[in-house]
Amino acid sequence: MKKQVKKKKTSIKKTGEIPNLYAVIIAGGSGTRFWPLSRQETPKQLLSIGGEDTLIQATVSRLGSIIPFERTYVVTNSKQVESINLQLLAMSGVSGEANFIIEPEAKNTAPAIGLAAVHLMHINPEAVMVVLPSDHIIKDKKQFCSSVLLGADISAEGYLITLGIKPDKPETGYGYIKRGRKIKKGTYRIEEFREKPDKKKALKYLRDGRYYWNSGIFIWRADTVLKAIEKHMPELYGGLVRIGKAIGTDGVEKAVKSVFSRIKPESVDYGILEKADKLAVIPSDMQWSDVGSWHALDSVLPVDDNNNVRKGNIISIDNKNSILYSGKRLVATVGLKDMIVVDTPDATLICPRNKAQEVRKIVDILKKRGAKECITHMTVLRPWGSYTVLEAGERFKIKKIEVKPGSKLSHQLHRHRSEHWIVVAGTAKVTNGDKMYNVHPNESTYIPMSTKHRLENAGRIPLQIIEVQNGDYLEEDDIIRFDDDFKRKTVK
Amino acid sequence: MKKQVKKKKTSIKKTGEIPNLYAVIIAGGSGTRFWPLSRQETPKQLLSIGGEDTLIQATVSRLGSIIPFERTYVVTNSKQVESINLQLLAMSGVSGEANFIIEPEAKNTAPAIGLAAVHLMHINPEAVMVVLPSDHIIKDKKQFCSSVLLGADISAEGYLITLGIKPDKPETGYGYIKRGRKIKKGTYRIEEFREKPDKKKALKYLRDGRYYWNSGIFIWRADTVLKAIEKHMPELYGGLVRIGKAIGTDGVEKAVKSVFSRIKPESVDYGILEKADKLAVIPSDMQWSDVGSWHALDSVLPVDDNNNVRKGNIISIDNKNSILYSGKRLVATVGLKDMIVVDTPDATLICPRNKAQEVRKIVDILKKRGAKECITHMTVLRPWGSYTVLEAGERFKIKKIEVKPGSKLSHQLHRHRSEHWIVVAGTAKVTNGDKMYNVHPNESTYIPMSTKHRLENAGRIPLQIIEVQNGDYLEEDDIIRFDDDFKRKTVK
Repeated sequence: MKKQVKKKKTSIKKTGEIPNLYAVIIAGGSGTRFWPLSRQETPKQLLSIGGEDTLIQATVSRLGSIIPFERTYVVTNSKQVESINLQLLAMSGVSGEANFIIEPEAKNTAPAIGLAAVHLMHINPEAVMVVLPSDHIIKDKKQFCSSVLLGADISAEGYLITLGIKPDKPETGYGYIKRGRKIKKGTYRIEEFREKPDKKKALKYLRDGRYYWNSGIFIWRADTVLKAIEKHMPELYGGLVRIGKAIGTDGVEKAVKSVFSRIKPESVDYGILEKADKLAVIPSDMQWSDVGSWHALDSVLPVDDNNNVRKGNIISIDNKNSILYSGKRLVATVGLKDMIVVDTPDATLICPRNKAQEVRKIVDILKKRGAKECITHMTVLRPWGSYTVLEAGERFKIKKIEVKPGSKLSHQLHRHRSEHWIVVAGTAKVTNGDKMYNVHPNESTYIPMSTKHRLENAGRIPLQIIEVQNGDYLEEDDIIRFDDDFKRKTVK
Repeated sequence: MKKQVKKKKTSIKKTGEIPNLYAVIIAGGSGTRFWPLSRQETPKQLLSIGGEDTLIQATVSRLGSIIPFERTYVVTNSKQVESINLQLLAMSGVSGEANFIIEPEAKNTAPAIGLAAVHLMHINPEAVMVVLPSDHIIKDKKQFCSSVLLGADISAEGYLITLGIKPDKPETGYGYIKRGRKIKKGTYRIEEFREKPDKKKALKYLRDGRYYWNSGIFIWRADTVLKAIEKHMPELYGGLVRIGKAIGTDGVEKAVKSVFSRIKPESVDYGILEKADKLAVIPSDMQWSDVGSWHALDSVLPVDDNNNVRKGNIISIDNKNSILYSGKRLVATVGLKDMIVVDTPDATLICPRNKAQEVRKIVDILKKRGAKECITHMTVLRPWGSYTVLEAGERFKIKKIEVKPGSKLSHQLHRHRSEHWIVVAGTAKVTNGDKMYNVHPNESTYIPMSTKHRLENAGRIPLQIIEVQNGDYLEEDDIIRFDDDFKRKTVK
């Protein structure tokens, strides 16, 4: 597991940076709303939606000019930390590992933000936090940055600041913020938070001009938000004080675990903001979307003449206003209207757009069944490359394994399976017991059960092998690691 | 290729048989209307729809008590003959091979029926033909048989007889037959054929009581229909006479080919029946459906409380009146109404029920693209078992191969690929060049390029192997066969 907080020493000061400004990216998510593309192990922030970067990569990337990577902290759980780290390392211009703050369990945003605040206080008592959801889309990066800097500016006066999005339609899926009197140019006191409205109210808000969408992006000093937690969530505050004392000692992980096991889940909106006094909103035109479900996809992806979003191997005849999303598999659609069709190698979703929220019911059913289709994809990314399960039968499993040039899997053994490897592209450097040799395309090798082995791509092009596993137990957790470039204990 | 007509010597006379009665099963079909379940290589009659048997197996099976297998003839094309033969051989109670009459090209039903008639005349000048589509569903077998026997009875008087289905709804998808005066109990002269009506007319026909659906099942003496062809389709008749003279000689295949290349396509309904004089209809309650498209599936398969047909790995939430058809892959559907969803391992169809006919447009697009998804399935049945393509990449292809106990593939070689075989179940008897040896589960063997080899399951349980092919050209036609239990030349 990652250390609770890692500090970076590789900071390079960039123009426009404010020294005390820190990014806190909240990256939880259960992978429900974008099922079947999102899974428990690849929730929405790890997906590319509306761009090449994944949503969390884009979140980090758009901060680039104002907050350096070494002052960016990701709050997440231990299951996602490896995948997120992998994605952030893959970003161009990023060097060094990301800073992670690990939540032992999900307790909504107030405890997550409190945990980040108490960590930042330890690092820098003057810290100003920019709290960012990891899975939103913001198209106007420049607007975003200038709004954040404006927020950082007035945070010095003890405000709890929310970025408000100027509505361009009567959206019923977002909470609203009503602005009060002006503080200074571009910043207002918050008069009131409003829950998701019905259509009529949403139209009223839109026409009124003083209402903004609540973006969930917050800016405040760490000490300001901690004071607000002390006042409005004293129980959480007590826990955070205990954690604060443990930071810098070996006991921090245990302290966080103990506090989080008892704290009740609460959103920062309900637990703090709706009760606090010195609130500000910064209206912004940054072209923001929370892409809360498949339904929202046409607001962030290009549409065809009939208002369909089309991606992948789709045959589309006479469709209208539909989301048609596939990969390599062929999906043929005729005469659909206002439908969502999402295809992945092992699962397909079909529902009308107005039922997009019901995807959670499907995920619930899958969880009850213990079905793999809600947990993982057939292709699983690993730091060294990826593997795809091609077929699983009784006593055998077939995988296609791709290893990046220069990468190697851990030195490992399996108690319950042997493995046949056939190289189909690239050259494999194989450690098999005491021997070490190369295997070329159209050659194969055999790794007996309980034999220490290692697979490496020492070449310059991607290595592709077909692995046929034989044994009575073929799960990923039958692995004993002896040496690992990626310091992993439990997963391959 | 099969001989044009094979005669059986294994006839066993059954009770109720009429000595001169022959079944002529018309099995063409391009695999369009039930795409993606049907493909060019597995058209509708080769599918199990609404039962365990495939439609052509059911067609043969329901004749069992009145026409023996050796007097059953299948009119089809050379591409389908092997698959049909395989399916008929797999039927319980069937011994010996089926009789095939091969059409060199599809020219609609009149030439196909004429070709069968001229063959039957050669075998038995007293032959009475029962002409049956191969892809319909008939639930009341007893009713069907008694209607056929009644038809055979009056065919002696020179009638061209059609079985008419008593309508139970105002169906607009079928042609209608209006009965005239009674000939004898249960048989009427045909007053008129009517094209597919609109809803209003269909309702009128239903209320009138004298209209029947045209089932496409015909009964007549071979000489009667040939006389009618002579009168109404003289050009076809001329061709049939030429074929008739060649039957029994080596020139028959050439003659058929030559005639069919010139004859114009025509249906028996339009070309003969609508013009002929001595027509009869036998009304029947045999619970017939032509299952003309996915739309018709709920008339032959059980439906749930919300009137959905559900098959395979389907999660269904709040769906109504929909056809939800899958195999092992997961398909999750929410809030669908009057929709068709059909999933296969490599392609998915989604369309509203009233667009079921437009599936042909999709198949047209696929044909233009040269896409495999309209030609074959990922799993291909072979006389010795089956293979499934798990993955195909540049210079490699991975197959799972299953060989039935006691079966073997041909003795063969490939010029452009080598093969790695890993046994995952059963025991493989392998011929590899000059050597012969057994390969057990968790063992592998390697077949070099241009090496004669053979795979056999000499054991008692199915053999499963994973084959990894390596080479520059990996198509099925890179095969040279030296010995084959199934006398095949071109396909594996």
